[in-house]
Amino acid sequence: MSTHVDAQGNVMMVDVTEKAVTERSAVAEGSIAMSAAALEAIRKRAFAKGDVITVAQLAGIMASKRTADIIPLCHPLPLSNCKVEMQLTATGVHALCTVKTAGRTGVEMEALTGVSVALLTVYDMCKSLDKGMEISGIRLLKKSGGKSGDYARP
Amino acid sequence: MSTHVDAQGNVMMVDVTEKAVTERSAVAEGSIAMSAAALEAIRKRAFAKGDVITVAQLAGIMASKRTADIIPLCHPLPLSNCKVEMQLTATGVHALCTVKTAGRTGVEMEALTGVSVALLTVYDMCKSLDKGMEISGIRLLKKSGGKSGDYARP
Amino acid sequence: MSTHVDAQGNVMMVDVTEKAVTERSAVAEGSIAMSAAALEAIRKRAFAKGDVITVAQLAGIMASKRTADIIPLCHPLPLSNCKVEMQLTATGVHALCTVKTAGRTGVEMEALTGVSVALLTVYDMCKSLDKGMEISGIRLLKKSGGKSGDYARP
Amino acid sequence: MSTHVDAQGNVMMVDVTEKAVTERSAVAEGSIAMSAAALEAIRKRAFAKGDVITVAQLAGIMASKRTADIIPLCHPLPLSNCKVEMQLTATGVHALCTVKTAGRTGVEMEALTGVSVALLTVYDMCKSLDKGMEISGIRLLKKSGGKSGDYARP
Amino acid sequence: MSTHVDAQGNVMMVDVTEKAVTERSAVAEGSIAMSAAALEAIRKRAFAKGDVITVAQLAGIMASKRTADIIPLCHPLPLSNCKVEMQLTATGVHALCTVKTAGRTGVEMEALTGVSVALLTVYDMCKSLDKGMEISGIRLLKKSGGKSGDYARP
Amino acid sequence: MSTHVDAQGNVMMVDVTEKAVTERSAVAEGSIAMSAAALEAIRKRAFAKGDVITVAQLAGIMASKRTADIIPLCHPLPLSNCKVEMQLTATGVHALCTVKTAGRTGVEMEALTGVSVALLTVYDMCKSLDKGMEISGIRLLKKSGGKSGDYARP
Repeated sequence: MSTHVDAQGNVMMVDVTEKAVTERSAVAEGSIAMSAAALEAIRKRAFAKGDVITVAQLAGIMASKRTADIIPLCHPLPLSNCKVEMQLTATGVHALCTVKTAGRTGVEMEALTGVSVALLTVYDMCKSLDKGMEISGIRLLKKSGGKSGDYARP
Repeated sequence: MSTHVDAQGNVMMVDVTEKAVTERSAVAEGSIAMSAAALEAIRKRAFAKGDVITVAQLAGIMASKRTADIIPLCHPLPLSNCKVEMQLTATGVHALCTVKTAGRTGVEMEALTGVSVALLTVYDMCKSLDKGMEISGIRLLKKSGGKSGDYARP
Repeated sequence: MSTHVDAQGNVMMVDVTEKAVTERSAVAEGSIAMSAAALEAIRKRAFAKGDVITVAQLAGIMASKRTADIIPLCHPLPLSNCKVEMQLTATGVHALCTVKTAGRTGVEMEALTGVSVALLTVYDMCKSLDKGMEISGIRLLKKSGGKSGDYARP
Repeated sequence: MSTHVDAQGNVMMVDVTEKAVTERSAVAEGSIAMSAAALEAIRKRAFAKGDVITVAQLAGIMASKRTADIIPLCHPLPLSNCKVEMQLTATGVHALCTVKTAGRTGVEMEALTGVSVALLTVYDMCKSLDKGMEISGIRLLKKSGGKSGDYARP
Repeated sequence: MSTHVDAQGNVMMVDVTEKAVTERSAVAEGSIAMSAAALEAIRKRAFAKGDVITVAQLAGIMASKRTADIIPLCHPLPLSNCKVEMQLTATGVHALCTVKTAGRTGVEMEALTGVSVALLTVYDMCKSLDKGMEISGIRLLKKSGGKSGDYARP
Repeated sequence: MSTHVDAQGNVMMVDVTEKAVTERSAVAEGSIAMSAAALEAIRKRAFAKGDVITVAQLAGIMASKRTADIIPLCHPLPLSNCKVEMQLTATGVHALCTVKTAGRTGVEMEALTGVSVALLTVYDMCKSLDKGMEISGIRLLKKSGGKSGDYARP
């Protein structure tokens, strides 16, 4: 955190000028819990046009590309890949976002932003059926690349 | 959900043309859990310049204003107020986002987006201390205004 | 056109301050022509997840909402509805975009921008199969509302 | 300023929910000083295609429309007019930005942002000729509408 | 197209991680047809301030830079050049957009988006004179760079 | 300036395709003058949550990252660092913005845009206390990197 504040206490982007450009990837996950009625409605639409899952996946990808515009101190990074996988579960929808780049800093925030916006989009499309949905478990599963080394959630 | 798909199965914005312009508000909440070390670092900076909480609040407000640009089928709404309140808890940070507008549709998504982006920003600023942080409990607490009436979480 | 330039020759937004807020709508269309192979690939995916048509519809809707950010002298308008209907034809894909608002100026540009971006998205998703696709016939079909009255293409 | 901070010290948008929607306007100005060579280059292009002045005017108008996206706590406002007038002076270029809306809060920031970005664009287009240009005198000339009444610079 | 969908049917960005960074360029074209009156109005302004052509060129360049924000599955690319050339023809305006980058994927979409938005801007600025204008012939003329090799329209 | 216009008079981005990717930096400054009352209000909040300085610094950083989206002919650049330092002076606030990248063109505009938006944000947050504030002295202090060599303000 101190890396976002200089010696005089000024908020700043972390200076990554000296870091090497390396291949980096990150995977994040999260879920949304909902009523049986809302879940059934998603299930019914899952193989037709305009389904909730496709809209949510696209929203997650588009937000992931714009992470540096949404999270104030993130560095702009040219993503080489972004994918949002979504699965219906017994209680709702699970999302998994994988992001890759070749850059000077990691893509954890891009993966977490992709997951968050995909789940918010599910909320938006189902809110007429269930206002009580809850988004939880948004967290980093693993990352690779960069000087600080790889990370895998214990 | 069916309101996002027409009779031919085309995905669409919900048509709110016939709805009245009324005062509307929504409140959403969410939390991020983190290690004691990360939490202590936030606490120490909480009364100095460049603190995590202020950056996260601003990020939430700015994202809330851009909800229609982030969530694909949301209607653009001219917000008349947006506030993100954040509290340090025993295990992390709790966020509460209140949004108001005068419009043809509600601001639930604006409140939920504000909370989500504020918490993602906390993750971003503390991730050098703790990569295992987890965002949970993102949900609507209450809303008012509009034909469907008021909602308060049970 | 002269309404975009003042007496001194300065480029400007048209001043709509004195215009009344009225319900307005516009419908625009356009097409993309492609090889039989590319068209067949779209057809096969049309009822599965991640299909070209849904992605293109969403892209059109999102771009329509951002028209004032893309077309330099357009006024920001709070859309109350936007829909992009797409049909497979004998030679490609036809797109029809319907937009509604209550505002001081019309939504022709929002409808035309929605059509254009939906068709560009079809190109993007099919370009590995056919680089020779061509977008044509982007035009206004009708508009209603406002002082200048209704318009229907002859 | 205290209107941007609530009783608990949370940064927030000013709550304008209770304010009336009224016609509002604002005019701001500013200048850029430059070398005689750079000024002569602008003058020569002033009546040809692609001239510096037109590009700067458009940039100012487009930025003015996006003020709520650039200035963190500004309210989104649907501008009904925006114009940037630019004059060559003895020492550089003078810019005047006029903005109008019907809304719950004023358009001072839209006028000031329009002036600033127009002048930054002049810098960008002339910087190969003169890196020492200086932008000054960005200030509000007058505003009208709203409860706090009209303002005219003394 | 299948490159936008993985084995499980999830929509995704094409993974270009393994592709080499090479110099790439693309050229696209398109036209807008209009009434003689609208065309004459453009012609008269073509050598004065605030002319339609300059505004349209700028709009095309700015949209081309933002292609990854407009077309859902496009990769962000740092453009090294973008130019929109526009010619008055016997029946309207012809646009040619040339884009260059050094990246892992091509700039066809950037060139096509630049052409489309430039022509939409002509429509916007002339629509008070002629609502029947029609945009056609938007297509890729050539591209170079990348593993798939060069392309030139037959 | 002529680098923004080709031989036919078309406005264009400068073609930097042939330029080398090198480390580049730029520093710009500017100031805002205000009444003693407004300055005192900033001073009092300078060590509390939600203070004007932190909000202005963040606004400057976020705008600097989006320079290519705000200034029409700027090239998109992946910033590796951006910092806005702000000091209270006897008459107002002084801002200093430092930007770094590895790219084909310099970051002068990113530094100048960061300074400008930081100062505009101070105006926004203090305008209820003083509408007469004036922004001045926005200029480049130094730049390094690139073929044209280093620059330091005399």
